[in-house]
Amino acid sequence: MRLPPGVTSADFSKAIKEFEAVIGKEWVFTSDEDVDLYRDSYSPLWHEEDEPIPSAAVAPDGIEQIQAILKIANAYKIPLWTISTGRNLGYGGSAPLLGGSVVLDLKRMNRVLEVNDKNHYALVEPGVSYFDLYRYIHERGLKVWLDPPDPGWGSPVGNCLERGGGYTPMRDHYDAVCGMEVVLANGEVVRTGMGALPGSKTWQQYKYGFGPYVTGMFSQSNFGIVTKMGIWLMPEPEAYLSGTVTVSKHDDLFPLVEIFANLVNSGTLQATTLLTSPLWFSPPNEELDALRYSGSVPGLEDYARRKNIPYWSVPLPFYGPAKVIAAQWEYAKEKFSSIPGVKFEDGPSYRFPLSADQLAKMTDTVPFGIPSLQIFSIMGPHGQGHLGFSPIIPMTGEAVLESQKVFTQVYRDLGSPGGSATTFPIFSFFARAFVNIYLFPIEHDVEKNRKTREIYRRLIKESAARGWGEYRTHTTFMGDISDTYSFNNHALRHFHETIKDAVDPNGILSPGKCGIWPKRMRKATA
Amino acid sequence: MRLPPGVTSADFSKAIKEFEAVIGKEWVFTSDEDVDLYRDSYSPLWHEEDEPIPSAAVAPDGIEQIQAILKIANAYKIPLWTISTGRNLGYGGSAPLLGGSVVLDLKRMNRVLEVNDKNHYALVEPGVSYFDLYRYIHERGLKVWLDPPDPGWGSPVGNCLERGGGYTPMRDHYDAVCGMEVVLANGEVVRTGMGALPGSKTWQQYKYGFGPYVTGMFSQSNFGIVTKMGIWLMPEPEAYLSGTVTVSKHDDLFPLVEIFANLVNSGTLQATTLLTSPLWFSPPNEELDALRYSGSVPGLEDYARRKNIPYWSVPLPFYGPAKVIAAQWEYAKEKFSSIPGVKFEDGPSYRFPLSADQLAKMTDTVPFGIPSLQIFSIMGPHGQGHLGFSPIIPMTGEAVLESQKVFTQVYRDLGSPGGSATTFPIFSFFARAFVNIYLFPIEHDVEKNRKTREIYRRLIKESAARGWGEYRTHTTFMGDISDTYSFNNHALRHFHETIKDAVDPNGILSPGKCGIWPKRMRKATA
Repeated sequence: MRLPPGVTSADFSKAIKEFEAVIGKEWVFTSDEDVDLYRDSYSPLWHEEDEPIPSAAVAPDGIEQIQAILKIANAYKIPLWTISTGRNLGYGGSAPLLGGSVVLDLKRMNRVLEVNDKNHYALVEPGVSYFDLYRYIHERGLKVWLDPPDPGWGSPVGNCLERGGGYTPMRDHYDAVCGMEVVLANGEVVRTGMGALPGSKTWQQYKYGFGPYVTGMFSQSNFGIVTKMGIWLMPEPEAYLSGTVTVSKHDDLFPLVEIFANLVNSGTLQATTLLTSPLWFSPPNEELDALRYSGSVPGLEDYARRKNIPYWSVPLPFYGPAKVIAAQWEYAKEKFSSIPGVKFEDGPSYRFPLSADQLAKMTDTVPFGIPSLQIFSIMGPHGQGHLGFSPIIPMTGEAVLESQKVFTQVYRDLGSPGGSATTFPIFSFFARAFVNIYLFPIEHDVEKNRKTREIYRRLIKESAARGWGEYRTHTTFMGDISDTYSFNNHALRHFHETIKDAVDPNGILSPGKCGIWPKRMRKATA
Repeated sequence: MRLPPGVTSADFSKAIKEFEAVIGKEWVFTSDEDVDLYRDSYSPLWHEEDEPIPSAAVAPDGIEQIQAILKIANAYKIPLWTISTGRNLGYGGSAPLLGGSVVLDLKRMNRVLEVNDKNHYALVEPGVSYFDLYRYIHERGLKVWLDPPDPGWGSPVGNCLERGGGYTPMRDHYDAVCGMEVVLANGEVVRTGMGALPGSKTWQQYKYGFGPYVTGMFSQSNFGIVTKMGIWLMPEPEAYLSGTVTVSKHDDLFPLVEIFANLVNSGTLQATTLLTSPLWFSPPNEELDALRYSGSVPGLEDYARRKNIPYWSVPLPFYGPAKVIAAQWEYAKEKFSSIPGVKFEDGPSYRFPLSADQLAKMTDTVPFGIPSLQIFSIMGPHGQGHLGFSPIIPMTGEAVLESQKVFTQVYRDLGSPGGSATTFPIFSFFARAFVNIYLFPIEHDVEKNRKTREIYRRLIKESAARGWGEYRTHTTFMGDISDTYSFNNHALRHFHETIKDAVDPNGILSPGKCGIWPKRMRKATA
C-alpha cells in the first residue's frame, strides 16, 4: 500500500475505512490498478523514482461529502490533491505534486446549474467539461458561446482556475470568472462576490461584491476547494472574419507589433492570434537551415524575397456584427499600411450559426466556440505528450526578438537537436502582453525526459534573468518557477504561506501547489 | 487631546514623539485645527456624538517612513486609517471609520513613475491625482487616455481600490489595475502579479503573476497599504460618436434592456451609459405629478404620447476608429428597430484630439479622458454633499422596474419629500450588471441627516431582501452593508477576519473598513 508522507499504515487504513463510510466504497480507490489511472502519463518524471504517485483517490459528490472527507483528512493529516476532471495534460494531469497525496476527484460533481442567454453566463460545478457545457447549450438552442481551450475535454472550472487561454474575445479564461463557492479546509462554505448575499440576483453578473475581492486567491492556489463557479459567456456573434498581415523585412517587426498593440489595447482586436516568422515554418533545405542557424538578417531577408516568403506574419481574427468586423479589418489595414511593402490577405469569413456543411468541412471548430480534441493531431504518432514553457513577455518587437535569441541559445548550449532552427510562436492569449509558448515533447523515455527537464530549468532561469515570468507550469516545475518570483526575499510567497497557515493549518490541501507548502512540510522543502 | 480607543494619553504622546522623530514634526498633525481638516464635511454623522474624528494625522513620504510608522503603531496598538488624497467625498472623505484613528495620509507620495503609450499603462503612487496624471500625459503629448471619475481631484489608486467607475470603455476602474506594491502591517513589502519577479518587464502588462492572484484582496480592504499601482490606460481613440435610443411604451423596457445587454456583453457597446425615463425628468406639473404618484401605466403612456416625451431613453456612446463606431451605431439601430415605434437621435461626434475651441465649448470633459470638477455644479447652492446608495441589479427590464418600485415605496413609507416623484437613474458602470444610483443630499443639519440615515438603512434592507447588494458605501454604513453579505452565517466575513488576524495581528490597519474588525475590537462591535 502506498502511503501519504508521515502517515502510518495503520492510520491510513483507518482513514480509508472512514472515507468509505462517508462516500461509499465504490468511490474510494486504493488498488494499484485504479490509482495508476491517476498517474500523469506525460509526466516529465515518468517512471522515475521521483514521479509523484497518489496513494489513493476519493470521488465525493456534493459539499457534505467533501466536508466529511476534509474532517478525516484533517484528523489524520492526509494531503488531498484536488482535481476537477484531471485532464490538464502538460501540467500534471490528474497526478498530485506531492507523491502519496490522496486525489480528491470532483468528476461526479458535474452539474450545469444554470445557463443564461440574456445576461450571458453559466454556473457550473467542477466536474462539468467543456463538452458537457457545450452540449447543454446546444441542446437547448441557447444563443451563447463558450470559449473552449485546446483540447476541450477539461473543465471550465479547472481551466479558469489555472488561468488558461482560448481563442475568441473571451480568451482570458480567469477573466471570465464571476463568483465562486469554495469549501475551505475547515469545511466552511464561502461564496465570493455577490454570492455572499443570500438569494443574490447578480452572483454571476458582478464580480467584486463588497469588501476585499478574494476570488483570485482561489486561482492557481491551494487555499480552498472550488465547488461552484460562475463564468461569463459570449453572446453568439453575428459573424467572423479574418485577415492576415505580412511584412517582408526583419525590422518591420517593430512597427508591426506597435500597431498590433494599439489595436489590441483599444479593443479593436479582441481575439487570440499567433505572431510568427513564416521563414521558420518553411520546408527546410540546406540553404535555409544555414541561414537560420547563422541568424543573418540580410541573408534571411534576401531568401524571403527570392522565395516570396514573408518575414513576419500575423493573422487577425474578428468576431461580431458583420459590418463592425468589416470596419475593424479595414481600419487595421489602414494602420498597417504605414509599413512599406506590407501585404494583406483576406481569410475565411462566416455567419453564425454555422451550417452542418460548413462544420463538416472545418478542420478546427475551437475558435468558433465548439470544443474538440483536434489538437491531439499535433502530438505525433507515438502518443507523445507535451510540456508547455510559457513566459509572458512585453508586447514589443524588441521583446519578441530578444526572447527568440535567448531561448534559441539555451537550445544550442544544451545541444538540443532543435537548436539550429528553433522558433517560438508568440500568442496573444491575454490582453496587453504576449505569451511565448514552446511545447516540449514528453516521451516514455527516462533519458530524454531528463534532458527536457534540464533545458526547461535553464529556460526558466534565463527567462527570469530578463524579467520574464511563466504564467503556469507543470507540477514538476512549480517550485522552480515560484523561486523566480522572489522580490524582496520571497515576500509574496511568504504572504501566501501566511494565508495558507491561517486557512489550512493542518496543511491538507494540495501541498506544494505553485510553490506553497504548509508549515509542517515547509522546512523539508525550503 | 483626542485619543485612539484604548490608548493612554501617555502612550499616545510617546507615539506622537516617535512619529515626529521618523517623519519630521511638520508631517505629524495633532492640533484640533489641523486634524479638523481631516473630518468629513459631508458626514451623515456631521457634528453628532458618533462622528468619527481622527486623533491625529501623519503624512509619510516613502516606504521606509511607512515602515517606521507601522512599527510605532504596532507597538502602541494605534489604529491607522489610510487615505491617498482623501477626496472620496460621499464615502467618508479623509475621515476614518473608527473615531480616534490616526489618519495615514499618503498625499506626499505623488510620483507618476511611468506612463507608457506603446503598451498603454501607468505606474503611480497613491498621492497622484487624476489631474496630476492627466497633466503628466498632456505635457508629454502621450497618446493615452485615462478614465477619470467624477470629480477628478481624487487619486487613481484610491478610486481603483474602492472600485469606482468612469465613462469611457475603461469604465471599470478596478478592472484596469495591473500589479501593486503593498506594505503589510508588519512592514513587509510585497509586490503582486508579475511584480514579484525581480526586474519584471511585465508588471503593468499581465495581471495574474504565478500562483494565487491576490491583488483583489487589497481592494476595499484593510489588509495592507498600497504604495504603487499599475493601471491600464486607453490608447487615444480616433473618434467618438453617440446616439440616443428612445421608446414610447412602458413595456418596451423589456426588449430595450435585452438588446442593450447583448450589445454590452458582446463588446459592441463598451462605455458607460444611463438608462432613464424622461417622464421623470420632465418639468413637473399637477397632471404629471399625479400620474407619477399613481404609477398608472396607461395614464403615463398617454401623457408621454400627448406631450411627445419618450417613456424610456438610453444614450449610446461609442469610442474608437470612426468607421468602426459608425458601424456599431448602425448595428445598434438595426437591433433596436425590432421595437415598434423606437426612435433614434444622433448625438455629438468628435475626432481626437479635441481642438481648443471644441474644449472651450464643452460642458463636461470627463467622458473624453479629461478630469474636471464640473460635477460639483449638481451639488446645490448651499454646498450640500451627497451620499450614494448604489445597489447592483441584474441587467433586465424586470429588475429595473422592481427596483424603482421597491425604492419608491421606501421613500413613501418614510415620508420623504421626494417620494411622490422619485426615479432612480440606472448606470452601466460595470459590464453585465446595472448600478442603481441614488444620491442623497447631506446637509449641515443633524435632523435631516438622521432621517437620511433611516431611509438609507431601510433601502439597504429592502435591497438585500431582494438579492441586490451595494458595491460600495460611505464608512457610516459599511457595517450595515457587510451585515447583508451574510451567506452561511457570515462565512465570507469570517474568512476576511481569518486573513485579517493573520496579516495584521495587532489590528492597526483601518479597523472596521467594509465590516472587517481586528480581533481585539471584534466583540465590542459584533
